[in-house]
Amino acid sequence: MKHVTSRDNALFKHLKALTGSTHARRKAGQSVLDGVHLAQAYVAARGQPVSCVVSERHYDHAEVRPLLEGIDPDRVVLLADALFAQITSVVNGIDLMLVIDTPGGHLPSTIDTDCVILDGVQDAGNVGSILRSAAAAGIPHAFLTTGCAFAWSVKTLRAGMGANFHLNIVEHCTLGMLESRLAVPLLATSSHADAAVFDTDLRQPVGWVVGNEGAGVSPEWMARVSRTVGIPQPGGLESLNVAAATAVCLFEAVRQRRAA
Amino acid sequence: MKHVTSRDNALFKHLKALTGSTHARRKAGQSVLDGVHLAQAYVAARGQPVSCVVSERHYDHAEVRPLLEGIDPDRVVLLADALFAQITSVVNGIDLMLVIDTPGGHLPSTIDTDCVILDGVQDAGNVGSILRSAAAAGIPHAFLTTGCAFAWSVKTLRAGMGANFHLNIVEHCTLGMLESRLAVPLLATSSHADAAVFDTDLRQPVGWVVGNEGAGVSPEWMARVSRTVGIPQPGGLESLNVAAATAVCLFEAVRQRRAA
Repeated sequence: MKHVTSRDNALFKHLKALTGSTHARRKAGQSVLDGVHLAQAYVAARGQPVSCVVSERHYDHAEVRPLLEGIDPDRVVLLADALFAQITSVVNGIDLMLVIDTPGGHLPSTIDTDCVILDGVQDAGNVGSILRSAAAAGIPHAFLTTGCAFAWSVKTLRAGMGANFHLNIVEHCTLGMLESRLAVPLLATSSHADAAVFDTDLRQPVGWVVGNEGAGVSPEWMARVSRTVGIPQPGGLESLNVAAATAVCLFEAVRQRRAA
Repeated sequence: MKHVTSRDNALFKHLKALTGSTHARRKAGQSVLDGVHLAQAYVAARGQPVSCVVSERHYDHAEVRPLLEGIDPDRVVLLADALFAQITSVVNGIDLMLVIDTPGGHLPSTIDTDCVILDGVQDAGNVGSILRSAAAAGIPHAFLTTGCAFAWSVKTLRAGMGANFHLNIVEHCTLGMLESRLAVPLLATSSHADAAVFDTDLRQPVGWVVGNEGAGVSPEWMARVSRTVGIPQPGGLESLNVAAATAVCLFEAVRQRRAA
């Protein structure tokens, strides 16, 4: 275990840079997981982090101890309380943070299973919620186009609640990169849909194209969609949050496959 | 139309207080709707606002003009651009804002229709998304317990996208206030549920109790619930965002009633 008490320590400077700047995290290829919940989810799914940073005051905390028992002692960094306070984004939480190598994701040569394709989803909370719904629904792949919120930002990770570690997430995807690999029909929601999602056979694998909060699915992706589906909205507003609409579609597929 | 160009103007001071402080809005019983979309949604659903504030530079904007045509000229306030910039929360948007009397909601003597009961939902984005799903699903009432995010905050209104104007929203509800009025069975989601939501008969009106993001439904409300329902999650995470889970439940009811 390393014990760091000085702000001039090189490791502390690295942590401060990582936690303070998306650019620094991207450049280092590392992400920061703040809080016990995300840390537990990471270790359970992916094993050892690069480092596990804990404050002096919370080193013996009941929720921290079992987590530390699973981590290689060489990777544990004990940080003076005042230094930890400088790098955390969590208020009134448990002072625990993992630094991880950001999983890169891989582009399968053939995409023949369920997937979600996020086409310019800008809000980090929406991206995190969609990743969480996808992981819960058992979908293996999430492909994010340029223009989406960063999948490994503090806010996306928090909204994802660990879903990031259960999915193959590929960022900066383009239509060109995915088009020739996709061996599943693409579906998108639309208010002028071919059919209601409830009347659409979802028992075989599909790719769900999820569009931008304001503009919806872009024309280039819409041209590739096999079928548009609508969510009947008896309230007459024809308006659902993009993450809520995606959850309705993903779990309608779960329902149909369960009944099949 | 009033034309305001001085920061010492009493109306401008009132607007600045309202937009700057939740406390001021609560005290005045007024809310602020920032942006054309929310303003259109309000006017379409509820009619005249207290006032409609527009900047000099956007008075002739193509999206503003049709909106202004529907508003009593006495209620229009033309504000110098520099003053408008001091009160808006929207960056790069159209400078238009409504001040409205915050609808108070009413507690029906008998609640025999669908409703959502938000029990300590803390995140304004989640409250807004749930209100939006409820309005889209045709649910008339939303009851919010103390501990929920304020239904008329800037962030909740933005996430609600106009749903606030289509629902009867009652805040600061307690179990005592609602219990004797509720004539529908109450349902809540749970990971240890009586049955899957897909196997639960939802064709009659129900009350959905939606719990806190971390702690779930409180014990006092859980004790009142007739039945817990689960959302099958083949990914095995047993974790969905509260607004996503609510959308799945509300639209499963829509599906069943449509088929009925």
